[in-house]
Amino acid sequence: MSAHAPEFGKVVVFGTGLIGGSFALALKEAGAVEEVVGFGRTPATLRAAQQLGVIDRAGINPTHEIEEADIVLVATPVAQMPEIFARIEPYLGPNTIVTDGGSTKGDVVAAARAAFGDKISQFVPAHPIAGAENSGPAAARWDLYQGKKVVVTPLPENSDDALDHIKRAWSLCGADIYELAPEAHDRVFAAVSHLPHLLSYALVHDLAVREDADLFFTFAASGFRDFTRIAASHPEMWRDICLANRAALLGELDSYRAQLDELRLALAQNDGERLEEVFGIARQARRSWAGDN
Amino acid sequence: MSAHAPEFGKVVVFGTGLIGGSFALALKEAGAVEEVVGFGRTPATLRAAQQLGVIDRAGINPTHEIEEADIVLVATPVAQMPEIFARIEPYLGPNTIVTDGGSTKGDVVAAARAAFGDKISQFVPAHPIAGAENSGPAAARWDLYQGKKVVVTPLPENSDDALDHIKRAWSLCGADIYELAPEAHDRVFAAVSHLPHLLSYALVHDLAVREDADLFFTFAASGFRDFTRIAASHPEMWRDICLANRAALLGELDSYRAQLDELRLALAQNDGERLEEVFGIARQARRSWAGDN
Repeated sequence: MSAHAPEFGKVVVFGTGLIGGSFALALKEAGAVEEVVGFGRTPATLRAAQQLGVIDRAGINPTHEIEEADIVLVATPVAQMPEIFARIEPYLGPNTIVTDGGSTKGDVVAAARAAFGDKISQFVPAHPIAGAENSGPAAARWDLYQGKKVVVTPLPENSDDALDHIKRAWSLCGADIYELAPEAHDRVFAAVSHLPHLLSYALVHDLAVREDADLFFTFAASGFRDFTRIAASHPEMWRDICLANRAALLGELDSYRAQLDELRLALAQNDGERLEEVFGIARQARRSWAGDN
Repeated sequence: MSAHAPEFGKVVVFGTGLIGGSFALALKEAGAVEEVVGFGRTPATLRAAQQLGVIDRAGINPTHEIEEADIVLVATPVAQMPEIFARIEPYLGPNTIVTDGGSTKGDVVAAARAAFGDKISQFVPAHPIAGAENSGPAAARWDLYQGKKVVVTPLPENSDDALDHIKRAWSLCGADIYELAPEAHDRVFAAVSHLPHLLSYALVHDLAVREDADLFFTFAASGFRDFTRIAASHPEMWRDICLANRAALLGELDSYRAQLDELRLALAQNDGERLEEVFGIARQARRSWAGDN
């Protein structure tokens, strides 16, 4: 490789929307990739991706594309990943590293193990934390990952080289790289993302199904607005995330229910001291976090 | 009263901060009051209120001030109201109407009944929905109530005249007036305000007390930010609100826990259909509410 050749040769992206498309654009912006080949569910999406410069060309058949690829990013909804893993497995070249952009990791790793078998060392799971409300190739932005977090969740089978390869690619996209075991990843995101969505949906649903729901919504104000903003999130997507991370989410939900039980007891016993203590610890932690973030 | 005389003569305000001070300034701005007399916990606060033009003068002794007053607004923390009600009761004139600015109503009404006895018809409870983060006379603004909601919670003993008197005063402040029974008021605000605060505090506390709390906060993002904004609220204030509205809040908390139990079961049973249904109903209600508010 000459001093001026891009760091990566061919990069293949399954899913050319917000996550995969922005990855492609960021590597192009960094001058770090020779060619980006895109796969997608419809020819129209791939044409749009090509017209927008997100991909250089649309892939037709994985048979001819995977072997020479340096990186294959699977950036589709998690539910489609098992089939894609199975399709590409026969064609992995010796230097091809596969990664993904899924927001849950235990289920993706299980699907990857099932599909890749002995080649599992070539799969380095990752989760770029850059959700946005839009989707499709037009939502892709070269700077989406600038200053954003990407959590790489290495497998014991991954070589240092394979791991560095994927971390390097995300660094070139401008992201800050973190490492967690897949189980720790799923526990953390169950607690700070999936559970809050479930709790917010639950509150709004509990009110919405009442006969006198209008009465309640009439007097809902700014605190309600903040608390329930995430209850406007996409139901199918959050159904899938909850089911994909079911074990960790059940654990976090049970921890939270125990916390609520304790607060209920304090309230029933008129224990203002305990209420103030819990509220005070929470406020301090929230303010400290907000100051850092 | 001549055509140009103010609609109200003397208005007495206990608590010259955000709620009481803004009420005074709004009535002055509307040219609707002859004189505002303020009572407060410290002479310094009252001096500041007078210098800022929030009150015309500081009251020294309720003995000489209450009998001639058209309106007495008690805009202190709810915990101080029983004592204030008891102090002013002996001096109520035949045309004096007392009202309050407390965010819970059942407890305030009970305290008022205990203090006012046969004169309870002269107490018209109300809740101006205009919380803000600042307090003290400097936080008072003449336009605080413009377009805001004020919930009046009439008692069976109130005459139409007494009720109209208080509604008219809040209308002159620019507020939109709603009427609810005190019990309905407390149930509604338990559901849309007090419970969300409790739930948000509970989530942050549940994470903050973990040994590896930093790990969780590191990956908390925008959804967490929205959901937990109200967990930065003032612990003593929310302790008092929760205790003051304990019965209604326990009811709403139990309804919510039943909702969570149902979602837990759906999750444990892999019932994606039910999860999506609940999330979908919530999303629709949240979006419809946000469109109206």
